[in-house]
Amino acid sequence: MTVPAPLTGVVPPVCTPLTPDREVDVPSLVRLVDHLVAGGVDGLFVLGSTSEAAYLTDGQRRRVVETVVGHVGGQLPVLAGAIDMTTPRVLDHVRAVTAAGADAVVATAPFYTRTHPAEIARHYRLLAAGSPVPVLAYDLPASVHVKLPADLVLELAADGSVAGLKDSSGDLAAFRTVVTGARADTALSGFSVLTGSELVVDSAMALGADGAVPGLANVDPVGYVRLDRLCRAGDWDRARAEQERLCALFAMVGVGDTTRMGPSSSALGAFKAALHLRGVIACPATADPQVPLSEAETEQVGKYLAAVGLL
Amino acid sequence: MTVPAPLTGVVPPVCTPLTPDREVDVPSLVRLVDHLVAGGVDGLFVLGSTSEAAYLTDGQRRRVVETVVGHVGGQLPVLAGAIDMTTPRVLDHVRAVTAAGADAVVATAPFYTRTHPAEIARHYRLLAAGSPVPVLAYDLPASVHVKLPADLVLELAADGSVAGLKDSSGDLAAFRTVVTGARADTALSGFSVLTGSELVVDSAMALGADGAVPGLANVDPVGYVRLDRLCRAGDWDRARAEQERLCALFAMVGVGDTTRMGPSSSALGAFKAALHLRGVIACPATADPQVPLSEAETEQVGKYLAAVGLL
Amino acid sequence: MTVPAPLTGVVPPVCTPLTPDREVDVPSLVRLVDHLVAGGVDGLFVLGSTSEAAYLTDGQRRRVVETVVGHVGGQLPVLAGAIDMTTPRVLDHVRAVTAAGADAVVATAPFYTRTHPAEIARHYRLLAAGSPVPVLAYDLPASVHVKLPADLVLELAADGSVAGLKDSSGDLAAFRTVVTGARADTALSGFSVLTGSELVVDSAMALGADGAVPGLANVDPVGYVRLDRLCRAGDWDRARAEQERLCALFAMVGVGDTTRMGPSSSALGAFKAALHLRGVIACPATADPQVPLSEAETEQVGKYLAAVGLL
Amino acid sequence: MTVPAPLTGVVPPVCTPLTPDREVDVPSLVRLVDHLVAGGVDGLFVLGSTSEAAYLTDGQRRRVVETVVGHVGGQLPVLAGAIDMTTPRVLDHVRAVTAAGADAVVATAPFYTRTHPAEIARHYRLLAAGSPVPVLAYDLPASVHVKLPADLVLELAADGSVAGLKDSSGDLAAFRTVVTGARADTALSGFSVLTGSELVVDSAMALGADGAVPGLANVDPVGYVRLDRLCRAGDWDRARAEQERLCALFAMVGVGDTTRMGPSSSALGAFKAALHLRGVIACPATADPQVPLSEAETEQVGKYLAAVGLL
Repeated sequence: MTVPAPLTGVVPPVCTPLTPDREVDVPSLVRLVDHLVAGGVDGLFVLGSTSEAAYLTDGQRRRVVETVVGHVGGQLPVLAGAIDMTTPRVLDHVRAVTAAGADAVVATAPFYTRTHPAEIARHYRLLAAGSPVPVLAYDLPASVHVKLPADLVLELAADGSVAGLKDSSGDLAAFRTVVTGARADTALSGFSVLTGSELVVDSAMALGADGAVPGLANVDPVGYVRLDRLCRAGDWDRARAEQERLCALFAMVGVGDTTRMGPSSSALGAFKAALHLRGVIACPATADPQVPLSEAETEQVGKYLAAVGLL
Repeated sequence: MTVPAPLTGVVPPVCTPLTPDREVDVPSLVRLVDHLVAGGVDGLFVLGSTSEAAYLTDGQRRRVVETVVGHVGGQLPVLAGAIDMTTPRVLDHVRAVTAAGADAVVATAPFYTRTHPAEIARHYRLLAAGSPVPVLAYDLPASVHVKLPADLVLELAADGSVAGLKDSSGDLAAFRTVVTGARADTALSGFSVLTGSELVVDSAMALGADGAVPGLANVDPVGYVRLDRLCRAGDWDRARAEQERLCALFAMVGVGDTTRMGPSSSALGAFKAALHLRGVIACPATADPQVPLSEAETEQVGKYLAAVGLL
Repeated sequence: MTVPAPLTGVVPPVCTPLTPDREVDVPSLVRLVDHLVAGGVDGLFVLGSTSEAAYLTDGQRRRVVETVVGHVGGQLPVLAGAIDMTTPRVLDHVRAVTAAGADAVVATAPFYTRTHPAEIARHYRLLAAGSPVPVLAYDLPASVHVKLPADLVLELAADGSVAGLKDSSGDLAAFRTVVTGARADTALSGFSVLTGSELVVDSAMALGADGAVPGLANVDPVGYVRLDRLCRAGDWDRARAEQERLCALFAMVGVGDTTRMGPSSSALGAFKAALHLRGVIACPATADPQVPLSEAETEQVGKYLAAVGLL
Repeated sequence: MTVPAPLTGVVPPVCTPLTPDREVDVPSLVRLVDHLVAGGVDGLFVLGSTSEAAYLTDGQRRRVVETVVGHVGGQLPVLAGAIDMTTPRVLDHVRAVTAAGADAVVATAPFYTRTHPAEIARHYRLLAAGSPVPVLAYDLPASVHVKLPADLVLELAADGSVAGLKDSSGDLAAFRTVVTGARADTALSGFSVLTGSELVVDSAMALGADGAVPGLANVDPVGYVRLDRLCRAGDWDRARAEQERLCALFAMVGVGDTTRMGPSSSALGAFKAALHLRGVIACPATADPQVPLSEAETEQVGKYLAAVGLL
């Protein structure tokens, strides 16, 4: 299907359920997609950071896209991450995910290599030239170690190289520069500005964002959809209350013992433990070399769910 | 062939010559390998950072390993980078490069994802379990954004997970900790400690390094081999003079205009321009999205070569 | 005077006008304070980053506090930065600024030295024990290279060590954690949570901030006071419009040529050029070793002012 | 006295002994100076990072310089740190320490403020213009968060703004660029290039450094003087053995429990514990807000001393 321009609403980065031996658990993935669709989401983003794209082999990535597109293709737009170090490698992923049916691709600036704004611009222009579907820029400085400059994003939007921005930088002021810059140019009316922050979706919507890509929406799609609708209705007080409820739930990402694991093991482990506890996925395993949550840590996740009425 | 334990001497990270349309230039690669072998090097490291591994597609990577192994296999050990974000993806590269004949693999800590020492340790242990050939740890904080702690390297050496270290951290004090730690344990007598710094090979050898993996050795293999032999002979005064000559040559990495390109475009562009000027490779192109050197910048590279008698 | 608990509204970090030979320009400082008071601000923060505290000698710092307190003391609360590397040095500044009449002090975590959360906690507890007036924590990772963790701020709030937070981290999600954490504890009803971001004051107010400390309020105090009042009235549409007007004005911080100067020279130079163009201060000089704006850059500042009707 | 040009040999950054109530312990400081002079050092550097300059009040700093200059002035050159954020504040310290008798001053680039190479150059030129004694540049990126570029150092050396470099960057390759650059210019024959790394003094001397400023020389001045003399004699094998002995001793900096304290508390705490155990200073206290070593950690320090025959 053609991705709406702009794409709006809640577009969860879909977790990738794994079997105990770390293969893609297709039935669980299908159930997760159903859970999200039933929750009212507006699109699906597979192979993002929350999807453990960095951990999935090319074969697993293909399986994920085929499964999700096969299950919901045509009903909802399916965006796919094309996460790799540089242009030639990203283009290979673009080919793979579009062959599997993705409606749009999402790509970061080059990483691992040391780069430059001029090279980032070339990167996105080459991706646009090589992609049969729209390309969204993914700003994720925690992983890429470079922040996409707002003026570069607007320049790439203006020349049609990028169709939208998924901003996971945590820098709402810079995000606002893109939002207001895009709105000021009628030629950019189809450009999508999406926040990747779970905790300030109401703030992002209030200043003009088109939608959100919150990892936590795996666990509570209904909550994020409700939040999005309250924001669209301008009901800011109730939006804030819903956002604060989701913030309380989000605190689950800190359950992991920091002497034993990193923030990825803890956060993705918590999301998957929650999906397992809620009965959506069969196994809470995260990909290697992440460290699994302990039983006590998993119990903590359950308490977070119970506290907001999800268990 | 079996990689010597320890691997010693000069093991250049082999540049990957490209055609004007950015495909692997196999005849140039063969000529480059001949140039390095004729220079007296002790091994070859393909698919490292200097090889633009981050820019090569999986198909191109395979072609590089097959070409080099096919041309020199058995004469010299061929190490291959398995550069990717996390364990499952790295293991796919391990399978690919060893199927193509690599004698050892070189892998960094996980990157893109946020990680933890315990996860880095798991990563290397899983790589060791899954690799049919020895695994060397690659410490490259400029790309990976994490420094491999010396005590972790020694721990992984002690349990046999890593067979050596390629240290491109620039932190000679931490490197020394590994060198002296490895030497203090007779069980580690086969562990290879290699420096990736072009500029302090003499210093690294003086404190006990087994060898060097200098990108600049593509341009002047004879110089680095001479340096290595002077160090082994304990002729420190002449070693220092040779090292300083190579330092002067290395300054070519700064020819690129920093308002127009990043350090990778400049440094790899300079190495390839030098190889082109020296008649070793047919085309100085670097991979996308790197920015090519201008004509004036290329002329500067020629002056660096001429100044040390290489043109 | 006693600082209100919580302190609310607009509390500009007051620029420090300098003479051409880089001494404190007392008459200009008095005029600037009058300009801010006339604009309706709710308090004054001297010796913050926008005040060039890092550049002022101890004698100049004292002169600033004495001048401002002498001119408005008792009408408005005057907060003073106590900006230095570690506890003993900060305590000397606390003594100096409170002797000169400051009503509260604002202090960062230790910097220059490498530190630890336990040491940051000790730091604030020792400051609280040694200060005759309330201490506000100043979160400024761009300068201090450490982010104050939200849970540490709340812990220090709970034990009475800090009376408020000035958050210039740019991380609105972490800021929200402090805001909602403080609101959840009735014992913290007097704790002030202030944002230092010029560009998302409306967002911060919407999620519960008590007020703002915007450097740009030197240039347009009326605009920020209007924004604050609109937020308090829940008139979010007009608040957003006012905020966007101020965002457009804020873009002046980028006038400086980045090949010639750093971001501090550019931003503080722009604020002072604007104050000079608006007739508030006699000379736009910034402190050494900052680089002055060129004539063309100063003209650009004038255009930003004109565009929002301030010139 | 006039500082030799170049200054050579071992110039320890002198620890600042404190009383239990964190005042300068003058008798212990005098004993420490005697211990260093008896060890054969070539100069003294007070108010550096190892001296806890970042923690000492202006009064304490003055006391330190007066004490040390009063005790050894004229026998040995006394360098003093002028550690503060920007030019005007550093110049105040320059005035204070030279009034107290310092023979040279040592200053970093600006910190806390965000800066630029052009501003760093202005900073050192203004310091040179305002200082009655030579100024050495102090490269300490761990504290200043900027690395002094080698070409900038050489430019400032060439125009006479800086008389030497104390390099604590840990980047030996960049250090070498300064060393060889200075040696290549006969006008710079008096420029001092000193390493601040405890662990690679032999390497630095071998490539042409003039001397070292090792914090650990407080604990074992005799060892570092012996190392320096072996290097000067070209006896590299014995130099390496001595350096390795000192590396083993240096490991004491890691005794502190990282869940309880930062690296400064641990390293400075270990040096002071060692000086206390060796009977040189009366009390091992470090300045606030550093966390003291536990009894068990102090015992560990004793074991490090015993292992190299210092207890």
